Amino acid sequence: MEALARVNSGYQHGYGNDPETEAAKAALRELFEAPEAEVFLMPGGTAANALVLGTLVQPWQAVYCSGLAHIHVDECNAPEFYTGGAKLVAAVPGDRITPEALKKAWAFWDTGDVHQPFGGALSVTNTTERGNTYTLDELKTLFDLAKGRGLAVHLDGARFANAVARLGCTPAEMSWKIGADAVVFGGTKNGCMAVEAVIFFDPEKARGLPFRRMRSGHLLSKHRYLAAQMNAYVADGLWLDLARTANATCASVVDGLTALGVTIETETPANMIYFRLPLRVHEALLAKGAVYYHMPEPGDGPDASVRARLVCDWNLSEEAVQRFLDLVKSEI
Amino acid sequence: MEALARVNSGYQHGYGNDPETEAAKAALRELFEAPEAEVFLMPGGTAANALVLGTLVQPWQAVYCSGLAHIHVDECNAPEFYTGGAKLVAAVPGDRITPEALKKAWAFWDTGDVHQPFGGALSVTNTTERGNTYTLDELKTLFDLAKGRGLAVHLDGARFANAVARLGCTPAEMSWKIGADAVVFGGTKNGCMAVEAVIFFDPEKARGLPFRRMRSGHLLSKHRYLAAQMNAYVADGLWLDLARTANATCASVVDGLTALGVTIETETPANMIYFRLPLRVHEALLAKGAVYYHMPEPGDGPDASVRARLVCDWNLSEEAVQRFLDLVKSEI
Amino acid sequence: MEALARVNSGYQHGYGNDPETEAAKAALRELFEAPEAEVFLMPGGTAANALVLGTLVQPWQAVYCSGLAHIHVDECNAPEFYTGGAKLVAAVPGDRITPEALKKAWAFWDTGDVHQPFGGALSVTNTTERGNTYTLDELKTLFDLAKGRGLAVHLDGARFANAVARLGCTPAEMSWKIGADAVVFGGTKNGCMAVEAVIFFDPEKARGLPFRRMRSGHLLSKHRYLAAQMNAYVADGLWLDLARTANATCASVVDGLTALGVTIETETPANMIYFRLPLRVHEALLAKGAVYYHMPEPGDGPDASVRARLVCDWNLSEEAVQRFLDLVKSEI
Amino acid sequence: MEALARVNSGYQHGYGNDPETEAAKAALRELFEAPEAEVFLMPGGTAANALVLGTLVQPWQAVYCSGLAHIHVDECNAPEFYTGGAKLVAAVPGDRITPEALKKAWAFWDTGDVHQPFGGALSVTNTTERGNTYTLDELKTLFDLAKGRGLAVHLDGARFANAVARLGCTPAEMSWKIGADAVVFGGTKNGCMAVEAVIFFDPEKARGLPFRRMRSGHLLSKHRYLAAQMNAYVADGLWLDLARTANATCASVVDGLTALGVTIETETPANMIYFRLPLRVHEALLAKGAVYYHMPEPGDGPDASVRARLVCDWNLSEEAVQRFLDLVKSEI
Repeated sequence: MEALARVNSGYQHGYGNDPETEAAKAALRELFEAPEAEVFLMPGGTAANALVLGTLVQPWQAVYCSGLAHIHVDECNAPEFYTGGAKLVAAVPGDRITPEALKKAWAFWDTGDVHQPFGGALSVTNTTERGNTYTLDELKTLFDLAKGRGLAVHLDGARFANAVARLGCTPAEMSWKIGADAVVFGGTKNGCMAVEAVIFFDPEKARGLPFRRMRSGHLLSKHRYLAAQMNAYVADGLWLDLARTANATCASVVDGLTALGVTIETETPANMIYFRLPLRVHEALLAKGAVYYHMPEPGDGPDASVRARLVCDWNLSEEAVQRFLDLVKSEI
Repeated sequence: MEALARVNSGYQHGYGNDPETEAAKAALRELFEAPEAEVFLMPGGTAANALVLGTLVQPWQAVYCSGLAHIHVDECNAPEFYTGGAKLVAAVPGDRITPEALKKAWAFWDTGDVHQPFGGALSVTNTTERGNTYTLDELKTLFDLAKGRGLAVHLDGARFANAVARLGCTPAEMSWKIGADAVVFGGTKNGCMAVEAVIFFDPEKARGLPFRRMRSGHLLSKHRYLAAQMNAYVADGLWLDLARTANATCASVVDGLTALGVTIETETPANMIYFRLPLRVHEALLAKGAVYYHMPEPGDGPDASVRARLVCDWNLSEEAVQRFLDLVKSEI
Repeated sequence: MEALARVNSGYQHGYGNDPETEAAKAALRELFEAPEAEVFLMPGGTAANALVLGTLVQPWQAVYCSGLAHIHVDECNAPEFYTGGAKLVAAVPGDRITPEALKKAWAFWDTGDVHQPFGGALSVTNTTERGNTYTLDELKTLFDLAKGRGLAVHLDGARFANAVARLGCTPAEMSWKIGADAVVFGGTKNGCMAVEAVIFFDPEKARGLPFRRMRSGHLLSKHRYLAAQMNAYVADGLWLDLARTANATCASVVDGLTALGVTIETETPANMIYFRLPLRVHEALLAKGAVYYHMPEPGDGPDASVRARLVCDWNLSEEAVQRFLDLVKSEI
Repeated sequence: MEALARVNSGYQHGYGNDPETEAAKAALRELFEAPEAEVFLMPGGTAANALVLGTLVQPWQAVYCSGLAHIHVDECNAPEFYTGGAKLVAAVPGDRITPEALKKAWAFWDTGDVHQPFGGALSVTNTTERGNTYTLDELKTLFDLAKGRGLAVHLDGARFANAVARLGCTPAEMSWKIGADAVVFGGTKNGCMAVEAVIFFDPEKARGLPFRRMRSGHLLSKHRYLAAQMNAYVADGLWLDLARTANATCASVVDGLTALGVTIETETPANMIYFRLPLRVHEALLAKGAVYYHMPEPGDGPDASVRARLVCDWNLSEEAVQRFLDLVKSEI
């Protein structure tokens, strides 16, 4: 808010030709230790990811991702729209891509024939949509495989900060140092109002993105308001502090639930977990006003259970967490 | 050829405004017992299927199909191109969609939320890409389910004639009488040079298709040459005779291979089978000049085997079949 | 800023399912006297206009607009992207569409033949890109013509408020009461940070827009920040006050320049004028730090002159205007 | 027909992997004196032109063409579809692009700014849609200008053969020797059933076209039937003989009509002319069964006249021409 107010007076050039934007780009290049990187700001993550994919793959290619990838199941075909019709291929049904699954995917699709949509990119999210965090080694193995096949590597960064916080690494270590071509460094889910940064480490690969952004309406005229958010977010490591806070809160939820015998499905969580609650407990929690996302179709009978998701925001208080744990304890 | 020669002289209006085209439309309406149907001719099946899908679904929807559906794996993302970016969702990994798989697919995708690409159409091929023929009851069960969800039903008809021949039913019985909205009645794979008919049983649902065909360049100017092929194909039941011949040839191959102990993977074949050959036998056959499609990656060791495909064309001779069977016998 | 701060704490549902958004929709429905209208908020005008066009026309149709229409010349083919390839047809070379030009356009394009991209919509901007304001009668004549041909009517509203202020009419009188189907009510160019409202007066015509907005990434997750801007903008007539202020400032510039003998090209201005300066004067002004947009290619010789544009923002001060006029006076 | 019959028996690989196709490619490379050229066959001209444009330009660019260009006004937005939304910019209202018009077009559009769709290609047709034939010098001047701006040059070749016949030049002289990047060498309008050849002189520029052709359904499976037509068309100069015949017929029509005082609007015709007939004469001709295309809206009063078009096909007989001229004579 303070940052927005700061740029809210005086005249500025529009469309990103302003000093605030230059500062944001410089800050991100420094943060990623990538002085040559091309940086673009946008108000939302769906477009940021889809524009990156549109820039990296041809319409007749495939993007390998997980079966639960946000780009595949939660964006109303945005990647298909922005790539002009490329195919998203789920290499695994779940959230974590494995080297074996990747090899199997291209054994099927990459035939060298004009009929099959062959792989153009690998898209990975860290932390994943089920809350799991790949290690750097796991990512590097996948990226090496992909690069060896000539695929571009896209890192969807909705929870990028949380993964970096959990892994204790640098942004560079989780991106270009292990082979990522483009990263979406998300701000919106980690405390910003509406801003995402797209970072291409090789400027050659970013060709076309300025036009793609413009013709899709994601180049905002009063661009300084995006830049101000990003500057505040990057300055003094705020992005990382927020992620660490969120992760710590999540860890205390995991500890609390585990102690109560609740099954945590997420194995390597950062700030989000999936867990299973007996149907009876779930219903009692809801009745008492607990708020969390849960899947439909719990099944029947005494073993009926519900898969629930808890996202620990950077601003979720200790008291709220304790209140939730107490509630679970009283019902279980 | 005779039909082409017949329309090869004299002046005719272009773009389908000619008597030969009118005759073809009338013949197809009669064949399908569908006097109100909208009929369109095109030179190829990829476009015919993709144009139908583009007409039936919105870009933000999903098309449920099988994991081996030609539209999904063999058309270089043509359906994504023609639908403006709709998603093809493989309800099963193999070639035969089941009611359970269909229900599971929409339990996952059709959330009623703006984020998920919900189902817009079901696309089924009969005979399937692995050579299996659904029964009318099996199809009807799938179509009823789909209609109950508000999905449109598309029947990809590359081997439509062969399925009709195997099932001993009429074209109407395998299409609109069990709920299909649009059929591609393929000619090219059953003896024609290059012609496919798209048939919409409800003219309302065909809206837009004339423009889609034109702007994609599939409205040929000398349209009478398409129509002449289709007229010759439909007249006197030639389409069905060719399919019956092909199916009979295929049945004799199945009998012959089975007698030799070869595993036939296709369970309910029409004119195409998939079968497994020991690697050693396969290599010997190739060496002696046998021609059939086979998958790569036979595996290692003494159990290594090859999945092979044999398509029995309407013009495959008995002698050729016998020669092939003799060859297998000598090597097995 | 105050409005943004107001929604900056507490938990809210995302994607527009929040009370702030409901309030904004209600406020806009009231402002437009259109209780049934469908209202959508988006961060930018390019997407807002293009999404409306994509909803109103088919890819094989044409959008009639002026030769200087922002959608045609300034949006990097955004309308073509969002319509899936519709054609923008400039009915006139300049900024003001005439009834004669419109009739001539469809005499050429609307042949009733599948080959020609026939008209799907008329798109008009008031105030225009050259600063001229159509009267309500002029608009109604165009809209009546369009509706009589079955065209949808789109009103690009970048300077909607300024036109309403100049005409002394209501928003309803400049939109649905004279036949507009959809309006983009722009906030960004009239003082907001980044928000535009799309208003469809007939909900039936808005079908598909929710999905189009989502798949293009223009449905922001923290939607309340858009809504808060719009609420502040609409409340107490702020939007109109800002427009009146801007128009008044512009009128004083017009008076001042006219008194100095400068040719004003804009005939019916609201808050923006185009005018011609002798090349010598222009160069002197630039040298002394005046800031305004000007066209390249002034020509040669003693008659060389420059076409310049001055947009009077709502926050342009009287002092700045006077300083500019004094500067012109000293050089002319 | 003979050529089709010749390839109508025996087994052949599909999708262009057959000797007939290889022969056609070789023949076209020889005809164009371009041994390195990439050659593609397709059944129709709309797709051939649109696929070339999609390969040459980006979706955010413009294609400069004439205001009567077939790609602009007669193909139901096919170029917009195949380019993913590029803009067609009419550099002139009529059929002949001039150097001045071209310069003016890019002075307006090519601003170097991300907002304007800047030029990606120049598309020219020779002979034009009004029947005029550019000289080689005229073409070279346009192409040089375009190349100097970094534009690709596309030659729409619906009447390529007729232009070559009129100019007495070689195919190479009217294409790559003066700077064309890609030509559509049309067969359908000059006697073939349905075949067009796309020729890219620099293979680098053809990248992507094989996939674009496949995913749009223009790679026919029984490709040998396309190739056979093209082989017959190219062999022994049949293409040129047909064009010469058509041009000669047209010249005799021009002479005949001119002698009768009819105004010929086409100045440099090959095989097609536009001419004006008094309304009275036109109506009498129609009543007596004459067939030619004419524009609507002849105007009123004694000066009312009709613009008519006559295309002289390669197979239009001398008798038919004489009959038509006699008819005109009797009514004028």
